[in-house]
Amino acid sequence: MVLAPRPEDLDFILHDMLRVEELAEYPRFEEHGRETFEAVLETARRIAEDKFQPHNRAADLAEPKLVDGKVEIIPEIGQAIEAFNQAGFSAAHHDEALGGMQLPWTVVQAAFVHFQAANLSTAAYPFLSIAAANLIRAQGTDAQKARYLGPLLKGRYFGTMVLSEPHAGSSLSDVRTTAKPDGNQGYRLTGSKMWISGGEHEMAENILHLVLARIEGAPAGVKGLSLFLVPRIREDGALNDVRLVGLNHKMGYRGTVNTALAFGDGGDCHGELIGEANEGLAYMFGMMNEARIGVGLGAIMLAYQGYLTSLDYARERPQGRHPGEKDPDAPQVMLIEHADIRRMLLKQKAVAEGGLALGLWLARLVDRHGQDPSERERIEAGLLLDIVTPIIKAFFSDQALAANDAAIQIMGGAGYTRDHPVEQYWRDNRLNPIHEGANGIQAIDLLGRKATMRDGAAFGLLVREIEAETVTARQAPMLEDLSDQLSSALNRVRHVTSVLTSAQLGPMKMLANASEYMEMMGHLVLAWIWLRQASAAVEGLRGEDGGHVGDREDFLKGKLHTCRYVFARELPKISPLADTLEHFDMTTFDMDTEWF
Amino acid sequence: MVLAPRPEDLDFILHDMLRVEELAEYPRFEEHGRETFEAVLETARRIAEDKFQPHNRAADLAEPKLVDGKVEIIPEIGQAIEAFNQAGFSAAHHDEALGGMQLPWTVVQAAFVHFQAANLSTAAYPFLSIAAANLIRAQGTDAQKARYLGPLLKGRYFGTMVLSEPHAGSSLSDVRTTAKPDGNQGYRLTGSKMWISGGEHEMAENILHLVLARIEGAPAGVKGLSLFLVPRIREDGALNDVRLVGLNHKMGYRGTVNTALAFGDGGDCHGELIGEANEGLAYMFGMMNEARIGVGLGAIMLAYQGYLTSLDYARERPQGRHPGEKDPDAPQVMLIEHADIRRMLLKQKAVAEGGLALGLWLARLVDRHGQDPSERERIEAGLLLDIVTPIIKAFFSDQALAANDAAIQIMGGAGYTRDHPVEQYWRDNRLNPIHEGANGIQAIDLLGRKATMRDGAAFGLLVREIEAETVTARQAPMLEDLSDQLSSALNRVRHVTSVLTSAQLGPMKMLANASEYMEMMGHLVLAWIWLRQASAAVEGLRGEDGGHVGDREDFLKGKLHTCRYVFARELPKISPLADTLEHFDMTTFDMDTEWF
Repeated sequence: MVLAPRPEDLDFILHDMLRVEELAEYPRFEEHGRETFEAVLETARRIAEDKFQPHNRAADLAEPKLVDGKVEIIPEIGQAIEAFNQAGFSAAHHDEALGGMQLPWTVVQAAFVHFQAANLSTAAYPFLSIAAANLIRAQGTDAQKARYLGPLLKGRYFGTMVLSEPHAGSSLSDVRTTAKPDGNQGYRLTGSKMWISGGEHEMAENILHLVLARIEGAPAGVKGLSLFLVPRIREDGALNDVRLVGLNHKMGYRGTVNTALAFGDGGDCHGELIGEANEGLAYMFGMMNEARIGVGLGAIMLAYQGYLTSLDYARERPQGRHPGEKDPDAPQVMLIEHADIRRMLLKQKAVAEGGLALGLWLARLVDRHGQDPSERERIEAGLLLDIVTPIIKAFFSDQALAANDAAIQIMGGAGYTRDHPVEQYWRDNRLNPIHEGANGIQAIDLLGRKATMRDGAAFGLLVREIEAETVTARQAPMLEDLSDQLSSALNRVRHVTSVLTSAQLGPMKMLANASEYMEMMGHLVLAWIWLRQASAAVEGLRGEDGGHVGDREDFLKGKLHTCRYVFARELPKISPLADTLEHFDMTTFDMDTEWF
Repeated sequence: MVLAPRPEDLDFILHDMLRVEELAEYPRFEEHGRETFEAVLETARRIAEDKFQPHNRAADLAEPKLVDGKVEIIPEIGQAIEAFNQAGFSAAHHDEALGGMQLPWTVVQAAFVHFQAANLSTAAYPFLSIAAANLIRAQGTDAQKARYLGPLLKGRYFGTMVLSEPHAGSSLSDVRTTAKPDGNQGYRLTGSKMWISGGEHEMAENILHLVLARIEGAPAGVKGLSLFLVPRIREDGALNDVRLVGLNHKMGYRGTVNTALAFGDGGDCHGELIGEANEGLAYMFGMMNEARIGVGLGAIMLAYQGYLTSLDYARERPQGRHPGEKDPDAPQVMLIEHADIRRMLLKQKAVAEGGLALGLWLARLVDRHGQDPSERERIEAGLLLDIVTPIIKAFFSDQALAANDAAIQIMGGAGYTRDHPVEQYWRDNRLNPIHEGANGIQAIDLLGRKATMRDGAAFGLLVREIEAETVTARQAPMLEDLSDQLSSALNRVRHVTSVLTSAQLGPMKMLANASEYMEMMGHLVLAWIWLRQASAAVEGLRGEDGGHVGDREDFLKGKLHTCRYVFARELPKISPLADTLEHFDMTTFDMDTEWF
């Protein structure tokens, strides 16, 4: 079966668009170059194809279950993670001294998308472990790093993120789990947690829970949250007091076991503080931001898988004739010949390839943020990451779900059955707008914080980035009209943002239409990333050494035409959204709760 | 658990908006009146609650399976259908002489939506049987009616629609199943059929397959299709040569067994012709049109169920605080207090209640079409049915799916689990844009046939209907602005339609953006049906006997405000669609198949 992303597309994004080989100019990556990058990507592709993809359906059909008090998970999941670890992917971006490959995050991310495309729910386990390792590396003491980082990077220990509680869901301010000093630099935790992915299983030597809790006497609200490391198995080898309350039975994404956990039911749940007391949310958000980009890319990779699957089907399946063909004995044409099928393929291609390009552009910002010698460059990269992260998480998970919907529609009844994978992609993908911060909350984050932070500095940088692309694109005659169109859209968005953030509406009214703001910004960013690709495609069509385009001609023309699709059919959706925002339309806000 | 539709809403639509008691003025219904109508609706509600709703999840968890060559279906499905039949619903609109209740179709449809809301896949069996009975009543010979109508109306026999074949899906022109005269007025059929709902099971004394096939020597294409009745069990008691090839394993809608059938593998499949030879498609389309309205209403009722379920949840679940609330000790507010949750509830309410209003308006057209003493009225009703049927099927099934998506999002992680029904509604609903003519084909039907038929007569009647409502609404000062807005939208749509249908583009280019046309028309119709409801709500708020509004005040204000939501947030989506259509944007059409 086909596996996303297409190698030629990944190559185009990494090299034509992002010039990723320039990363080897940073001292940290000086051992690397295009060749090592490509070797890593080839290995990822092979393991994803051989070990992750084959059990994607099996994991859906046999969801994790409780047998004699233990979580039973199909063995292929553990075997795939084992192969992932053995190839070094859990430690890929870490120091060579720690056994890592010291690879740029861009390349790590480009490798990881193969696993997400092949099997999102199996990829979730190492995804969480990698995030936990990053957090411990950033905030842990030397002793904590010495104890936990090695086994995490080897994949012997798995990590989790433990935030939600049954009574409060998204509202972290209401976390009630408490931590009491044990008089010996440790803590005893007590509380109930919900929606914990990978919270309990037998696949690892240990599970390291990263738990938000409140130290006794800490302030109310998010300011009183601290972060604790709670191992499933304590250092003395005893099982910690973390009880599995139950499994959640999900519609999709089933291979990732999802649990309700009780910490300290027996009064003896040992935890250790990570970093400073009452700084837990900031640390967790460091981890969450990474996770949010990962959620966006996971959604996008399902869109990409659905795109390639339905594209193959549309190329091979004869169905009907063109309108106007009067001869019933004329042969049927392939599905792909119908304009409406192409519309649904273009929609998918726009989201899948555009989303991947955006996700890897973000990963490159992570490298710039971490490695650039200029402090200003590092700060700017961080601000761009701040403002675009909620967009890739929320807008792209919504769009990716719509893309999977189109894949099903192209395949008709067949797409609705378990004989084909697209129905599972759609079910799996439905989680992405919910977890790691529901999309409505991302929208509030985007408009309420990111667009205004530091006097709009992050927003201003994004504007500058988009403006720069309109200038570049204008140099290619065939992109001039698109450049103008993006400039107008950008001006509209700037105006809306300025009106909204300066109107003194008060926070409730200002944020009442945050989801519309998210959608508007998302379409702007989608158009921008496609214009970037189009510019690179124009460049590519000029050919290397003055003329040789080779077998990429169709591919590059496809990039150009998909950009045209985005500008013709998606970008114009900004207009009614901008109207709603500019006029402070309060229709949803004003609906009385008794009127429903 | 809550059951859709809400009684006060159904009452409002039937009486305030549609004045359904006036139907008793037609001689056929003169025995009836508001009281008998209400008794029927109460019975439907009770049986739907008691017999259909309780096994909705059970049928999803235990899909039909093959055991020793027989289809095994959970027994609750048969029991529910039995209760449905015993209450007389299968025969509800048929002649009293045939054991029916001679009820208006509007009331039958209003009753039936309860079963669809409670359990769409169980309701599908009587839905198909009712459609088969209508077809036999319309096209069968006296002998066929005598033989089959009675058992169908009593629910002893079930019906099916047998169109698709494995190699051709939506392309009926390519039907290969053949029928050979047996020399004794009967036929022997041979061919493979696919996607047959209710195609095989043990719940009925007999299953009557209504099969499209080609009589030997008939013309190619749809002009050579005839309709055959093929009973599972022949009149002589022998099993007919209809072999179950396999079951399709669907993502949702699981209670309805879906089959691949082989007719005449053993050369002995007996069938009888219905009506004239080579007229099969026209007959089947008579049945399909009814089915298409039913598919639209089924989708809408799932939207309605999801709306009520997520509304209850949003009213009862505390979560977070308002933006700007700085005190973390302040109590959490209910989900419904958040503007973004209200946005998602309003979206659902707009689709659910608006869709039901449209569906029952169509049902009332069926009564006018069948019973009005004026031939002109009957013809006009038929034309309006022709043009609005693809819209309720396609636009509303898309919108209803989006509504279910919103229900899941409101409920967050909980909505993604099997602990709540909304994930199932979403999965079940995903079939509706596919079956009974995929939505892309409905769009081609709307623009390519319905909008132009009889020199645009059907389109003109719809325009007249919408214009009439703008005149009515303008009389209420609080609806004046909405009336103007609808008039402008209508003018835009008229212009687009006239440009498109007169541009001599040729059929391929004219239909390249048919889906955009469908979406534009759908938004127009949604706005119109809401303005109709708003007018009725203004009337209701004036009160009976000059002032008494009673406990309907909140409900009626909710209708007014939801209408405002539709005009503020949904109707403006017309504008970019109209641009695409007016400018003959050929972006999807021009995408080379090699560029994907």
